[in-house]
Amino acid sequence: MHDLLTLESLSEQDIVDLLDLAQNMVEILDRPIKKVPTLRGKSIVNLFFEPSTRTRNSFELAAKYLSADVINVQKSGSSVEKGETLWDTARNLSQMAVDAVIIRHQVSGVPQQLAEILDIPVINAGDGSHEHPTQGLLDALTLRQAKGHVAGLKVAIVGDVLHSRVARSDIWALLALGARVSIVGPPSLLPSTYEELGVEVTTDLKEALEDADAIQVLRLQKERQSTGEIPSLWEYRLRWGITRKTLQYAKPDAVVLHPGPQNRGVEIDSDVLDSSRSYILQQVRNGVAVRMAALFRLLGGGHDE
Amino acid sequence: MHDLLTLESLSEQDIVDLLDLAQNMVEILDRPIKKVPTLRGKSIVNLFFEPSTRTRNSFELAAKYLSADVINVQKSGSSVEKGETLWDTARNLSQMAVDAVIIRHQVSGVPQQLAEILDIPVINAGDGSHEHPTQGLLDALTLRQAKGHVAGLKVAIVGDVLHSRVARSDIWALLALGARVSIVGPPSLLPSTYEELGVEVTTDLKEALEDADAIQVLRLQKERQSTGEIPSLWEYRLRWGITRKTLQYAKPDAVVLHPGPQNRGVEIDSDVLDSSRSYILQQVRNGVAVRMAALFRLLGGGHDE
Amino acid sequence: MHDLLTLESLSEQDIVDLLDLAQNMVEILDRPIKKVPTLRGKSIVNLFFEPSTRTRNSFELAAKYLSADVINVQKSGSSVEKGETLWDTARNLSQMAVDAVIIRHQVSGVPQQLAEILDIPVINAGDGSHEHPTQGLLDALTLRQAKGHVAGLKVAIVGDVLHSRVARSDIWALLALGARVSIVGPPSLLPSTYEELGVEVTTDLKEALEDADAIQVLRLQKERQSTGEIPSLWEYRLRWGITRKTLQYAKPDAVVLHPGPQNRGVEIDSDVLDSSRSYILQQVRNGVAVRMAALFRLLGGGHDE
Repeated sequence: MHDLLTLESLSEQDIVDLLDLAQNMVEILDRPIKKVPTLRGKSIVNLFFEPSTRTRNSFELAAKYLSADVINVQKSGSSVEKGETLWDTARNLSQMAVDAVIIRHQVSGVPQQLAEILDIPVINAGDGSHEHPTQGLLDALTLRQAKGHVAGLKVAIVGDVLHSRVARSDIWALLALGARVSIVGPPSLLPSTYEELGVEVTTDLKEALEDADAIQVLRLQKERQSTGEIPSLWEYRLRWGITRKTLQYAKPDAVVLHPGPQNRGVEIDSDVLDSSRSYILQQVRNGVAVRMAALFRLLGGGHDE
Repeated sequence: MHDLLTLESLSEQDIVDLLDLAQNMVEILDRPIKKVPTLRGKSIVNLFFEPSTRTRNSFELAAKYLSADVINVQKSGSSVEKGETLWDTARNLSQMAVDAVIIRHQVSGVPQQLAEILDIPVINAGDGSHEHPTQGLLDALTLRQAKGHVAGLKVAIVGDVLHSRVARSDIWALLALGARVSIVGPPSLLPSTYEELGVEVTTDLKEALEDADAIQVLRLQKERQSTGEIPSLWEYRLRWGITRKTLQYAKPDAVVLHPGPQNRGVEIDSDVLDSSRSYILQQVRNGVAVRMAALFRLLGGGHDE
Repeated sequence: MHDLLTLESLSEQDIVDLLDLAQNMVEILDRPIKKVPTLRGKSIVNLFFEPSTRTRNSFELAAKYLSADVINVQKSGSSVEKGETLWDTARNLSQMAVDAVIIRHQVSGVPQQLAEILDIPVINAGDGSHEHPTQGLLDALTLRQAKGHVAGLKVAIVGDVLHSRVARSDIWALLALGARVSIVGPPSLLPSTYEELGVEVTTDLKEALEDADAIQVLRLQKERQSTGEIPSLWEYRLRWGITRKTLQYAKPDAVVLHPGPQNRGVEIDSDVLDSSRSYILQQVRNGVAVRMAALFRLLGGGHDE
C-alpha cells in the first residue's frame, strides 16, 4: 500500500489488517506515556484546504505519538492565495524532503491526482463528497469493538448520504467486511446507485432501522434548508432525526455513531448522544488510532525501525 | 493540585511551592541547552478562543522546554465555527489522548466548567475578567526576585482594575503572600468590593503610591474612551499615567511591572518602561518559568519520571 | 557570523563556506532518516509579518531536521494587532529564552534593526524590497550544482528587479562569486544604480540573454499593471516573458531558475518551467539545505555538539 486514497480500492484483507494495526494503537493510546519512536525522523505535512479542527488535530496527534514531525499548511495565509496552483504547492512541499502529505480538499479526486505526481505517500483526509477513508476505518473499528465483529451486522446510515464522503467510505468498508447496509434520508439527499451494490435505499426511517445493530447518523448541513433540499430543520428532525423514540425502531442493543460535529436537536437528540448507546467519544479516540495505523503502514512498514 | 484555575482557591503554601518550582525553572532557562526530558511523551493542547501572542507562545515554549508535544487550536478556522459547542470540542480533544488542556476564553468561568467535565488537568490561561493565574504567579515571582520577599511589601495596582483578570489574580496572590495592596484608577473602572479583603481602594494616584515598593501598571483598553468610561487618553495619562514624575510618589526604590502589551505614552511612559526600575522583561521570562512549573506540577509531579 | 541579514555584507569566503555547508545538508536531506541531533534543545521563532507558505515551511522544516523546536508567530491574530510595537514583540520573544529569530517583514531594514536590539541571532527571511539572503544563497547553490562553478558564468535576471529583494540578494552573491550579471525588464521596473557595480542593465531581453549560462526569472506582481508600471500582462509576456522562443537567445545549455511562486504564462511559460532546463524544484530543495546551513552556522558552530 503506497497511499491511502479510498476504501473502495481496498480489499477486505487490507481493511482487516489496518483495523488490527489500529487496535494495537488503541492500546498504546491507553498507556501513561503513549509516545513511541516508530516514525522518529519522519516529517509529515498536514495540507488542509478546508477548515477542520478535529481531523487535522487527530492526524497531527497521531503523527506526534509516533514521534514524527508535523507541519501544518492551511489555505488561509498560504501562497495558494498568490495564485500558485495546488500542484506547485504540493510539489514544492515534496521537494522539501517531507515523507508524506495528508490532504483535505473541497474537490473530489484531488488526493488521487496528487498521488500520481508525488513519489511520497498521500493520505486522503476528505475530498469533496467522494471519500474520507480514515473515517470509514474508524467507524468500522468502533463497530468491531462494540459488537465483536462487523460481518453480519446491519448498519443504517441516516441523513444526507448524497453529499457525504463519510457515508461513501463507511459503505465501502462495511460491504467489504460483510455487513448489511441500509441508507435512509430525504429523497433529495439519497443516491439510488448504491442499490446495485446491495445497499438498501429507503426514505422510511422505520424501515431502514428495522433489525439494525448500529446507526451511523450523518451531520446535516443546515444550508440544505435554504437550497430547498430539505423542507425545514423541524420537519427533518421529525422524519429522520434520531431520538429516544425513533431509536426504538432498531434492535434494543443497537449502538449509535456520528462522525461529528453534531447538530444537537437536529439530526440527533442530546439524550441519545449522551447515552450509553452512543459511541461518539470512542470514535474520536479510534480516529487517532486509525491515523496512527495508516501512517505506520505507509511510512514505517517494511523498514527496519 | 489537579488543575490550575484560580489563585483565589490556592493556599499560601500552594503558591509558595509553585514559586519555588518556578525559580528552579528560571535556572533551567538560563542554561545553553534548556530542554529537559521531564514531560517527554506528554501532549498538551493550547485551546485559545481569544487572540494572544505572548501567553500562547509562553505556554507553548514552556511545554516544549519540558519536552512535551503541543498542538495549537485557535478559534478561527476551527469547527467551533461549524456550530460545535465548546464542550464537544474540549471533550473530543480529551478523547484524543492529550494529557492537559490550556484554555483562554472570553467568558469568565469557562475553564472551571471545562475542568468539571474533563479528567485531564486544565490550566486557565485567562477567562473573561475573572482570573489569569499564571500571570498572578509570574508577577509574585518577579516581586520576590526584585525585593527578596513579598510579605510586608506595599504593591499598588494602577488602572482598569474592574475589567482586569490580571489584577484579580495579582490581588489573590499578593494577599496570600502577605503583601499590602492598593488599587487606583478612574472611579468607573474601580471595584469597591475589594475593600472587604483589606485592599485599599482610591482614585488618587498619589495616595495609592505612597510608600509603595512596587507598582503594577495595567494595560488600558483604548475602547474605554469611546464608551465614556474614561474622559480621554490625555486626561487618563495626566491623572493615572506612570511617568517619571508620578513615579516619585512611590518609594525611591519602587519597581515597576506591567503585564503587557504596553500602550507607551498612555498608562506608562517609555522612559519609565525602559528604565532600570522596570521589570517587564523579567516578567516575560518568569512567565515561561511559571508555566513550566504549572505544567510540571500538574503533569509530572508524583510520577517516577 | 552572528546574524544573517544581507549578502551585501558577506565576503566571498563567507558565501563559499555557507554553500559548502549547505551542500553537506543536501546529502543529509537525501537520506531515508534525515533528522540529525545538531540543534537539539534549541528553540527558534518564525516571526512572519507577511504571508508565506514556502519560505516559512522551508525554515520550519530546516530547523526540525536539525532537531530544533520551532514556534510560528504570524501577524494575524498576534498582539501586534493590539498596538504592541514590533520591538516589544521581538524583545518579549527573546526573553522567552528562544535561541534565534527568523523574521520576514514588509519594511526594508527591519531585520537589521532587530539584530541591533537582540542578543540572539537574527535571520532575515525577506525584508521589503531590500534582501532575501537565503534565496540568494540557494540560487547560487543551484547554479553551482548545475554548472559546477559560479565564477565566470553569465547570469541574466529578468523582470521586476526594482522591487525584488530576491534580485538584490542574487546580485550580491553572484558578484561576490565572480559571475557576470545582466538585469533586464521594463524601464519602470529597472534600477540603474547597479551599473556602477558592473552589472549590465538593459530593457532588451535578447541583449541580456546573449551568452547567458543561466536565467533567473522573477515573479511579476500583477498589481504592477493597475499602477501603470507595465503596459499589460500580454505585452509584458511578449517582450520579457521566458518562452521556448526567447530561451533561444541564451546559450543552448542555459538553465532556468525562478524563486516561485510562478505566474505560468506571464513571466514564464509552462513548457519552459516543466522542461529539463528548469531547476525550480532543485531550488526548493536547496532552500531547505541553505536554511539548515544558516541555522547550523549561527546556532551550532563553535560549540561541541
